[in-house]
Amino acid sequence: MRTSVGIIGAGPAGLLLAHLLRQAGIDNVVLENRTRAYVEHRQRAGVLEQNTVDVLRASGAGERMDRVGLRHDGIELRFAREAHRVDFPTRTGGRSVMVYAQTEVVKDLIQLAQQRDGRVLFEAEAFAIEHTETLRPVIRYRHEGAEHALECDVVAACDGFHGIGRRSVPPGRLNTYEREYPFAWLGILADVPPSCDELIYANHERGFALHSMRSPHVSRLYLQVAPDEDLNAWPDERIWAELDTRFELPGWRLERGRITEKGITPMRSFVAEPLRHGRLFLVGDAAHIVPPTGAKGLNLAAADATLLAAAIIRAHDKGDESLLDAYSDTALRRVWRAEHFSYFMTTMLHRDPRQDEFAHRLQLSNLHYIAASDAAAASLAENYVGLPVV
Amino acid sequence: MRTSVGIIGAGPAGLLLAHLLRQAGIDNVVLENRTRAYVEHRQRAGVLEQNTVDVLRASGAGERMDRVGLRHDGIELRFAREAHRVDFPTRTGGRSVMVYAQTEVVKDLIQLAQQRDGRVLFEAEAFAIEHTETLRPVIRYRHEGAEHALECDVVAACDGFHGIGRRSVPPGRLNTYEREYPFAWLGILADVPPSCDELIYANHERGFALHSMRSPHVSRLYLQVAPDEDLNAWPDERIWAELDTRFELPGWRLERGRITEKGITPMRSFVAEPLRHGRLFLVGDAAHIVPPTGAKGLNLAAADATLLAAAIIRAHDKGDESLLDAYSDTALRRVWRAEHFSYFMTTMLHRDPRQDEFAHRLQLSNLHYIAASDAAAASLAENYVGLPVV
Repeated sequence: MRTSVGIIGAGPAGLLLAHLLRQAGIDNVVLENRTRAYVEHRQRAGVLEQNTVDVLRASGAGERMDRVGLRHDGIELRFAREAHRVDFPTRTGGRSVMVYAQTEVVKDLIQLAQQRDGRVLFEAEAFAIEHTETLRPVIRYRHEGAEHALECDVVAACDGFHGIGRRSVPPGRLNTYEREYPFAWLGILADVPPSCDELIYANHERGFALHSMRSPHVSRLYLQVAPDEDLNAWPDERIWAELDTRFELPGWRLERGRITEKGITPMRSFVAEPLRHGRLFLVGDAAHIVPPTGAKGLNLAAADATLLAAAIIRAHDKGDESLLDAYSDTALRRVWRAEHFSYFMTTMLHRDPRQDEFAHRLQLSNLHYIAASDAAAASLAENYVGLPVV
Repeated sequence: MRTSVGIIGAGPAGLLLAHLLRQAGIDNVVLENRTRAYVEHRQRAGVLEQNTVDVLRASGAGERMDRVGLRHDGIELRFAREAHRVDFPTRTGGRSVMVYAQTEVVKDLIQLAQQRDGRVLFEAEAFAIEHTETLRPVIRYRHEGAEHALECDVVAACDGFHGIGRRSVPPGRLNTYEREYPFAWLGILADVPPSCDELIYANHERGFALHSMRSPHVSRLYLQVAPDEDLNAWPDERIWAELDTRFELPGWRLERGRITEKGITPMRSFVAEPLRHGRLFLVGDAAHIVPPTGAKGLNLAAADATLLAAAIIRAHDKGDESLLDAYSDTALRRVWRAEHFSYFMTTMLHRDPRQDEFAHRLQLSNLHYIAASDAAAASLAENYVGLPVV
């Protein structure tokens, strides 16, 4: 099989890239090793920054998002049993975020692909990427019991942290940067309306907690736990009691409901650079990971895909590869900004078991400062809604 | 001897407190264990934030400062061989800083004390503070070969980190918070006009460097070194060469001159709280230390002294102790803000020998962000010029 752009991975990065290329009339194939049901239901992120909303909307993929997504104009920081709201539009020239689950973005993009003859192959396992240093790279994959070769002009690895994309770059060609955190998130989905219209980021002596939602009827709640935490040690009652403790605020109550899903998310910062080797381009989690505090992972993937689509379109339409050549450097500026912001939010809000009381007091000073200073609140807000795509 | 307010230490905190109280007609005595020549010449800080300038000026102690001090409207951040200026007045409603050495502030305040019959006893060593839990505390001190007792209504310990003030609080009554840094500053004074009108904070692969000045004819320059660095390993030529390397910028040159003083300054963060025990009040370095990055030490001392003076004046004039009761909490909000800002500047600009490349990239991302974002630059600027006194 032959195509212009071979895309590995039908997550939001791969599907958005395929969608944007298809809109521009550029042939592409997406290879996804999981089933459609799996990728449509795995729980991931849920907050779209303004840039992501804009690109989905402008490319005709935002119809359902605009209908059922929840526009959020701020977040709450909760600490020392006080609540402080950070407003976004007043501090960012009208920008905001959209609460709309990654699963829904993925469903929308798959449906669009199917309506428009996009080729997305599920249960198609890419196992090798070859000839990336030539103008004719090849992806080898297994599908329906046989091995196949997909010949391309460009390969986009949108296959996540554990995918083959990054591992297909020859040894020594990537610089990697990494940080592991001494905590994880225990996340639940619960059939209960959110207890508050906005997200709540809580810094409590016992650890971080996050109040979020998937819809007006489904709450998404997280607790900081140890990285090796045993989920069996957390029956529902213990989870609700711990959430009550960490969200404690006079006059406020966390609503409870049936827990429909539980899971533990590790926390990691990771960057591999450059994002390109020959005709192989790395997109999203394939090249970089952020801890979830600050909701940047999905949005970085969408930003990478948007940049790479524009670069491929320019090369395809005008024979001008300057944007392709600039892709890695351009994307990495945003990536490092988000790496810093995610690290900042994570270290400000979590209780590091190794941290001393001095560090805890610095956290509280910083939180009080954000609550009191327009400049500090504006800095948090502009990062949260997403800085303009460079 | 008897006075209203017994003040230990003739640094800027003690002298400013004495001056403000004298202006309000409140009797006080300053006990200083060093000679006048010593306190007038020890090299310390050199940047007065807007609040400090305002209080000196408003209290009639700013005449020489306004004549020979150098108003600075910004600083330069230098990294990745680029220069980025942060302007202060445009981002802080017209606020700025004044480069005017601590030694000059001290000289001005001593001269004012002498002109107005202020009692400042040099070579008067306070060795005990007694009865602090009563309304008649006593400072015992040695002066001119004899022991004396100074009976007071209030004792203000302005005697620095190593003074007896903090040590006179009974064990268990103070909570302390501390952080040591794995580096120090090697500082020089040189008889050469500054190579730039403003301060330059440089983040270089080999470590931090700071370009500052004491006057239009005297430069003050610093290099990050190891905490146990041997000054003898740094002949003048090596210092200049290292400064050249760390300040490297196309088209820019560091001017050299005769080095008149060299020293090594350790870096520490420290807070003891509360700032009060009975009738004993802790002011400035006696209770808290910041690393010098961000120039907050002297300014915190001045802010403490200003707050305490207002509180004592209220108690003295109206019999209302509410400001005295609030002094510790009020001062500590500013202290923790400055602790955080100093930590932020220090960790963003220094090369921690234990740090990994991920941390270095976060530093660069943060510096690029401050150079590009109005909100981030405004946050740095408002902290640097000093947030309004609460």
